[in-house]
Amino acid sequence: MEGDPTLRLRVFDLNCWAIRYLSRRRQERVRLIGDALRREGFDLVLLQEVWSEQDYSDLKVKLGGCYPFSHYFRSGVIGSGLCIFSRFPILDTLLYQYSLNGYPYMLQHGDWFCGKSVGLGRRRSGSQPLLLGSPQLHAEYCRDKDAYLPHRLVQAWELAQFIRHTSKGADVVLLGGDLNMHPEDVGIRLLRGWTGLRDAFAEATRFEGCEDGCTLVPNNCFTDKSELLPFPLGIRIDYILYKAISSFMVKCEELKTTTGTVPGMDVPFSDHEAVMATLHIQRQGQAAGATLSTAEPTLADVVTEARTEVGVGLRVAQQQRRSSGRMALLALLLLLLQAAAALGALAGLDAGQPFPKLSFCLLGFLAIGILLLATALYLFHTMEVKMLRGTEEQMRMVLQALQEHP
Amino acid sequence: MEGDPTLRLRVFDLNCWAIRYLSRRRQERVRLIGDALRREGFDLVLLQEVWSEQDYSDLKVKLGGCYPFSHYFRSGVIGSGLCIFSRFPILDTLLYQYSLNGYPYMLQHGDWFCGKSVGLGRRRSGSQPLLLGSPQLHAEYCRDKDAYLPHRLVQAWELAQFIRHTSKGADVVLLGGDLNMHPEDVGIRLLRGWTGLRDAFAEATRFEGCEDGCTLVPNNCFTDKSELLPFPLGIRIDYILYKAISSFMVKCEELKTTTGTVPGMDVPFSDHEAVMATLHIQRQGQAAGATLSTAEPTLADVVTEARTEVGVGLRVAQQQRRSSGRMALLALLLLLLQAAAALGALAGLDAGQPFPKLSFCLLGFLAIGILLLATALYLFHTMEVKMLRGTEEQMRMVLQALQEHP
Repeated sequence: MEGDPTLRLRVFDLNCWAIRYLSRRRQERVRLIGDALRREGFDLVLLQEVWSEQDYSDLKVKLGGCYPFSHYFRSGVIGSGLCIFSRFPILDTLLYQYSLNGYPYMLQHGDWFCGKSVGLGRRRSGSQPLLLGSPQLHAEYCRDKDAYLPHRLVQAWELAQFIRHTSKGADVVLLGGDLNMHPEDVGIRLLRGWTGLRDAFAEATRFEGCEDGCTLVPNNCFTDKSELLPFPLGIRIDYILYKAISSFMVKCEELKTTTGTVPGMDVPFSDHEAVMATLHIQRQGQAAGATLSTAEPTLADVVTEARTEVGVGLRVAQQQRRSSGRMALLALLLLLLQAAAALGALAGLDAGQPFPKLSFCLLGFLAIGILLLATALYLFHTMEVKMLRGTEEQMRMVLQALQEHP
Repeated sequence: MEGDPTLRLRVFDLNCWAIRYLSRRRQERVRLIGDALRREGFDLVLLQEVWSEQDYSDLKVKLGGCYPFSHYFRSGVIGSGLCIFSRFPILDTLLYQYSLNGYPYMLQHGDWFCGKSVGLGRRRSGSQPLLLGSPQLHAEYCRDKDAYLPHRLVQAWELAQFIRHTSKGADVVLLGGDLNMHPEDVGIRLLRGWTGLRDAFAEATRFEGCEDGCTLVPNNCFTDKSELLPFPLGIRIDYILYKAISSFMVKCEELKTTTGTVPGMDVPFSDHEAVMATLHIQRQGQAAGATLSTAEPTLADVVTEARTEVGVGLRVAQQQRRSSGRMALLALLLLLLQAAAALGALAGLDAGQPFPKLSFCLLGFLAIGILLLATALYLFHTMEVKMLRGTEEQMRMVLQALQEHP
């Protein structure tokens, strides 16, 4: 087990909250992030919410010396916001966009426009192929009545499936990102259980930073204090997860988070705290056993729980589809009635008072508007139903397999 | 090399053209397909354009005895249309939806609504893990002026990247589907060059079926004869591709296509001909060398050619984005002018003839409609530009890598 050289890997992960025109003191913070990254010299940097390509280009120029390899993942209307900087060559990249990501009409939340996804890089660090992912999942806007839970669960499931399918040839898998889930949430249990990924915070020998490893804390000047009221210490939603496949072993030697403002400044890097891990990767004599199988009874419970939630989401989506279908039908009916009335008027059938032209026109446009909107909604919810049903079906298959071969 | 047991794999691939209410004699054809599959007993069946879940369910019931394992891939508004039937267990599935797939406003082509994608199954056949994909790419509606070429190239690229990333742990990779590309097209050369997949038609020891392996032939009663005028023999756009990784070898012993009508009937299975391959998978002593590297100079040329086409598409998309942006601005300007006129009228500033109310209203609604439409188009083309640029950038990276390490 000993004797082989070990690799020490220092990883930095941060949700940068760099939204053009919206995020406060964005350019200053991006500059500070770049300075810190250049100073600290990590091996691997995973950033989320770098929405502006200009910010990425600026970082690339600044960090070119110490991180010669980088990639920016493009997706959606606004982008994925994901980028990677690396000291070692990035051999190949792939972006997987989740099939569900909120609702286009929830403009105030805007997740739908972002094309949330997981960006994947394949690199060689020393001799080991390393698969690294930088995911971001749909945000949670209201924990008590979380309308996006089914979507986030579909994303967690797709992320897990994607990791399983792409990690076959990698010795080490590393995932760092803003998962928008608390450690005890069903989605993170599902992701960890189904992929065998381990949580750097739980495994770290040493920890330094915000209490309980929180990454959204009340004493960060950019966080919404009212949202964090039920969590006086803050919440942990940014993770570094890893696992070793085949004959390697990964240990987290140290995990750190930033704790609010940058030393010597009055501003933190972001509204999230950064997570920094020092990992030791070591070749070991025997191939590591399937760590997954030992936890399978629990895994079946987690998949069942997730499937129930997806089922709830499915019924809501079906209800919404029915409602929009009905609305479209009503609008169509109104239009047909108007057309009949107009034809009647043209044929000179209305002997009495004619319907006022302006109101008639306004009503027609209203009906057309509602018809178009309701049809678009119907199509959208049809797609939603399809994806939720597909995920539920996949989970059912996995449960069956888990029960047949425990 | 000899001594190890070989596996014989019989594969069936067909674009079923089973669109509800639109495809002629759909139910009858699906029944015929089911009968043939049950009679022939293939090991693996890859179907595309099974748009109705009811058709899939009917097939599943009929084929349950000889193909106990199956999966239907759901995506998009209408669905992906992809399904797999297998004699061996399907261990896991994953669907990858292409980031670009035509234009939502090209209703007559409808590809955008289909969520075209590649469905992936991972199964064990005998002792070998087998990765199988069933892709469908954007259709080509006009070969001379193919507006969808850049989209199809992005799809071919994403498909190749997806295969590369997911195939690491598989001994054999098998891809069967309707690629909507002629054998000499840049997209298929890109896909084959970048993944190392081999064309069963070119490799087959024996071939039987339509001349040149064509799968869209003029003597099929459902094909559009005028579209096939430049190709008197027909075109070959449905493929079975394969490769062996690690220490396996795959040989195509026999390839067949159907040739029009089903024997004893007056109707063919579909407007496409089915492709059937008999493959021999054999373990060999030495690990197969990287077949990719020998062809790399050509690969660089193919990637360059594809990148040029994507670049052309990028400029068109940028132009369309600019046009829709301008149209949205004009509509906004018109609305503002109208608002100013209306305010003026309210304030009693128009001493003379007032603007007729009805026309005023109609103009307002027209401006709102154009504004909404142009904004939606602008957002759509922004996304298109982003994805085309992303693909171009990825291709540039690959070219650089190919030049640095020839």
